[in-house]
Amino acid sequence: MHKHSAQGLDIALDSTRTIGIVGGGQLGLMLGQAAHRLGYTCVFLEDTQDPPAGLVGQVFSSEQLDLFLARADVFTLEFENTPVSVYEFISTQKKAHPPTQALKTAQNRLLEKKMFQALSIETPKFLQIDSKDDLVRALDSIGAPLVVKTAQGGYDGKGQYRLQTASDIEECWQTLGAHTPLIAEQMIDFMRELSIIGARNQDGSTAIYALFENTHKDGILARTLFPAPNQDNLFAQAYTAWHKIAEHLNYVGVLTLELFATQDTIIANEIAPRVHNSGHITMDTHAHSQFDQHIRAVLNLPLGEPIARTDGTMLNIISNYPNLKKLCAIASAKMYHYHKAPRTGRKLGHINCATQDAKQISDLLT
Amino acid sequence: MHKHSAQGLDIALDSTRTIGIVGGGQLGLMLGQAAHRLGYTCVFLEDTQDPPAGLVGQVFSSEQLDLFLARADVFTLEFENTPVSVYEFISTQKKAHPPTQALKTAQNRLLEKKMFQALSIETPKFLQIDSKDDLVRALDSIGAPLVVKTAQGGYDGKGQYRLQTASDIEECWQTLGAHTPLIAEQMIDFMRELSIIGARNQDGSTAIYALFENTHKDGILARTLFPAPNQDNLFAQAYTAWHKIAEHLNYVGVLTLELFATQDTIIANEIAPRVHNSGHITMDTHAHSQFDQHIRAVLNLPLGEPIARTDGTMLNIISNYPNLKKLCAIASAKMYHYHKAPRTGRKLGHINCATQDAKQISDLLT
Repeated sequence: MHKHSAQGLDIALDSTRTIGIVGGGQLGLMLGQAAHRLGYTCVFLEDTQDPPAGLVGQVFSSEQLDLFLARADVFTLEFENTPVSVYEFISTQKKAHPPTQALKTAQNRLLEKKMFQALSIETPKFLQIDSKDDLVRALDSIGAPLVVKTAQGGYDGKGQYRLQTASDIEECWQTLGAHTPLIAEQMIDFMRELSIIGARNQDGSTAIYALFENTHKDGILARTLFPAPNQDNLFAQAYTAWHKIAEHLNYVGVLTLELFATQDTIIANEIAPRVHNSGHITMDTHAHSQFDQHIRAVLNLPLGEPIARTDGTMLNIISNYPNLKKLCAIASAKMYHYHKAPRTGRKLGHINCATQDAKQISDLLT
Repeated sequence: MHKHSAQGLDIALDSTRTIGIVGGGQLGLMLGQAAHRLGYTCVFLEDTQDPPAGLVGQVFSSEQLDLFLARADVFTLEFENTPVSVYEFISTQKKAHPPTQALKTAQNRLLEKKMFQALSIETPKFLQIDSKDDLVRALDSIGAPLVVKTAQGGYDGKGQYRLQTASDIEECWQTLGAHTPLIAEQMIDFMRELSIIGARNQDGSTAIYALFENTHKDGILARTLFPAPNQDNLFAQAYTAWHKIAEHLNYVGVLTLELFATQDTIIANEIAPRVHNSGHITMDTHAHSQFDQHIRAVLNLPLGEPIARTDGTMLNIISNYPNLKKLCAIASAKMYHYHKAPRTGRKLGHINCATQDAKQISDLLT
């Protein structure tokens, strides 16, 4: 039997042509595909069984960190909950982009919000919560309703409590009190959720896409429109905020800034130090997707122009796969399957189409 | 160490979710990537070391045909010189598309030209050559210059002789006489070379791209423009010819018809029973590339609409890779690297761009 090349036994043993990626989910799969196009291969650090990225490269468990480290000269991440200590260790051994500080900041809502404040980027009012009394103080000073979250951990709506009145404090504390420090945030009366995604290279050059408009369902991204409609008076604000953060962190790679938007203002919600679900539509709207841009930045190659060829909609496939025959019958639908086992609330794939009218597809998904 | 999923040790052992591809070159790599997007994996039958398709799936040698056969329920090919006997055997064991007869016809220039004739598709005048005397007869009846080729074998300009006058007959016969039957073809005074590429499904439905214009250099495709300029008076002829052939062969999958074109006429040159180098631009001009369409046809899924989003140019990377930094600095250039070792005359990758002015890129390649 031929040895399998993607396992690195043959062609991919050259560490200068290999990128080490911490995490091996669908983002890793799509980064690996982008690396292939440029002549590179990827190896992945991932502890779950049969991760999507295993389709395109060798997967190492965290017990094999040394082997993983030996296989590549440059490293990056696709999993935001990567332990900072692991990523920091990798950074001391090899080149790693983005910088550890970006990961640290993204993992801690207090650090993140304080960074927004320090950079004069509008963000919801917030207070650090270490006790039940702090919840009382937050209700007084910020006002109800409040969203109380753990400063670290939790995503897609997990680890959150919506505090409406003082009578909720007891339950809120029982739910989250064991996980201090918490953060209490002002509930923003926003009209919609947007994101801005861009890449920054090692020489400080950047390539930033127009705004994405995101619709969540049960705390999970369900749909992204590109470009976000009516973004003319918002893009410059988002662009400025993105640049401030990227420069502050001396960022290299793709950085995502999630935003709330009112009629004419953007409010920073959080950053993701990685390619982002809302950017998946760039695989079909742009010559150079967010995955291409990230790989280029990590390799210190010039970034591609972020000029769109078409409008588009991205719909996430969640919990269950749609009928493939019916999906393929919809002229505009382009499937991206993550090869994951169906499970309630799990992202299993996405569908891109080059139109902002995706009703036929979304009907198939519900 | 995790077992590598793409090796089929974990997730890909389900033969109903696996496609067996005969050949493992760059066409196999790109077919494998298309299969991944739909939730399928591929295994490949390939005897060369470190083939490109090894990046995305397990590779079996021809000695392991039984193992290869056991791993998938449906089979196809990406290598036109696959021995007919091998493909025919696979067809008797499992579903295989396209039909063996298409491979047989494509491998034999006499069969191919006779098929064009039988279907009333214009093709260069030709004669079968089994002796030196046949060359004299061909010069008499068709006239000089003639292209003399082996009926089987040879590609990219190999195994051909250009016969100008009767005094060339001796040399021509010395060069090719050992490889009869030969075919002597009229040299067509064509203006340009075009191709038409389409997919046909198991229910007879088809999806056909507009014409591609191809420029060869030293017998190897160097550049493709999509759509071919000034194709209005040619497309219908090509479309009709493509349909006649596809129906005649009861074809399933992507079929390519290579054409010569004068001002207002197309002349059939040859068929390729597979995805084709000139169709690589569809990866960026269309929602559904030729690779997507072929996988859909093989899986009996509805074909995608072959509507173009943009114009484009494809440039082949031949013999040597360009400087990646310089290439990435060209805004429009999108690289597709085949992970092959450089060698004179070898196709190593291609570059797509969404414009028909690709001078900057082609300057970098020369």
